[in-house]
Amino acid sequence: MTYDIQRVYQHGTLALLIPGLFTGTMTVAELLTHGNFGIGTAHGLAGELVLLEGHAYTVNGDGQVSELTPDTLVPFATVHWQDSNLSPEVVQQLTKADLERRILAQAPLKNLFFAIKITGKFKVMHTRAVQAQTEPYPNLTTATRVQPEFEQTNVKGTLIGYYAPALYQGAAVAGYHVHFLNESHDFGGHILDYTIASAQLIVQPFTTFEQHFPSDNQAFLASDFDLNQINTDIEEAEH
Amino acid sequence: MTYDIQRVYQHGTLALLIPGLFTGTMTVAELLTHGNFGIGTAHGLAGELVLLEGHAYTVNGDGQVSELTPDTLVPFATVHWQDSNLSPEVVQQLTKADLERRILAQAPLKNLFFAIKITGKFKVMHTRAVQAQTEPYPNLTTATRVQPEFEQTNVKGTLIGYYAPALYQGAAVAGYHVHFLNESHDFGGHILDYTIASAQLIVQPFTTFEQHFPSDNQAFLASDFDLNQINTDIEEAEH
Repeated sequence: MTYDIQRVYQHGTLALLIPGLFTGTMTVAELLTHGNFGIGTAHGLAGELVLLEGHAYTVNGDGQVSELTPDTLVPFATVHWQDSNLSPEVVQQLTKADLERRILAQAPLKNLFFAIKITGKFKVMHTRAVQAQTEPYPNLTTATRVQPEFEQTNVKGTLIGYYAPALYQGAAVAGYHVHFLNESHDFGGHILDYTIASAQLIVQPFTTFEQHFPSDNQAFLASDFDLNQINTDIEEAEH
Repeated sequence: MTYDIQRVYQHGTLALLIPGLFTGTMTVAELLTHGNFGIGTAHGLAGELVLLEGHAYTVNGDGQVSELTPDTLVPFATVHWQDSNLSPEVVQQLTKADLERRILAQAPLKNLFFAIKITGKFKVMHTRAVQAQTEPYPNLTTATRVQPEFEQTNVKGTLIGYYAPALYQGAAVAGYHVHFLNESHDFGGHILDYTIASAQLIVQPFTTFEQHFPSDNQAFLASDFDLNQINTDIEEAEH
């Protein structure tokens, strides 16, 4: 286990989810050797994955939060070692759009991968969660056509996620991709929008993007990815 | 130094060369801590980089071969640790197109990164080499508009290079990208075409693509990459 705070690690690609390769290909235990914070999805799209302080939680399509056992498999996840020496910035009364613009305006980070972590109180938090799929898996667009949405006001918790440069659209989700889990561990998911009341923001830039492939998975190896369709499908499924 | 034979390491991106970011941002000495074989280019596009057995050579626009000193800087390079346990396959009387098709027909490698190394005798080897540029740098299309080409027949030497999945076009060169250096170290470059007489082929697949960014380089951080233009420019400059 190397604790490299300048490295973001990704297992699988966003692109492989598009044709429906939802089979888990790495255990949570192994994933946690590459980072203690992160996001992703679970085997069969069984929820939105949120990794906090070395624990992996999912928020499923019913809005229920569970902690995953170490042997649970995931098809796609991004993780990093949170740098405990970074000083948080206090942020108040900001929407998602405002905060995301402000980060890129403050520092020249647009061509790097970076993590964002926001801990505190949110005036509004609006999420959704994917519904678990069964085999034979549909493609991602079909699987995510109906997605339950959830909203809470005045909620305390942690937002975790990443920014990826535009060049990596398809490997990752270009731009911001963030998940949430509340303090009492009974609300969260893939974030659609939020307004911060008062919180602490940490931005952690990376010099290295480590892309790991599910090289033992025959369906992945044999798949023909339609690259022209990827942008459209990511826009539809992930935003 | 970790000798991970399942990992390919890349410093910089193909995309950053397109607007003309030819300034070197990593020393050859540091690059060689990430692999003993590889390809790339040198500071100011001063030649086609060929890394063999821990030595870095360039073939410049006059066709001259030099070994680079450890403090030479490179803007873009891809390297790996060659797996000494892989058994070579004897290949004979094959063109570049035939060999490249055959590798992908024999094994399901199209969605992975892999290295190819071919050592032996080539009936024909046709290369080109980029000409060194001076500041202010032009863009890649302009810099590579006139490129000297070289050809030798019945030449012994080593081909080294990579295949990258289509999804990584822009980060890398999608498909095959291979360089050559002959046995007597006086001929080589970026390969345009070849026919093998008789040689030994080693294909080394990777589970991990490690992308390192020149995160201290202000020009890189500030650059606006035109992603719509990247495909066209790579086709023109790299093929």
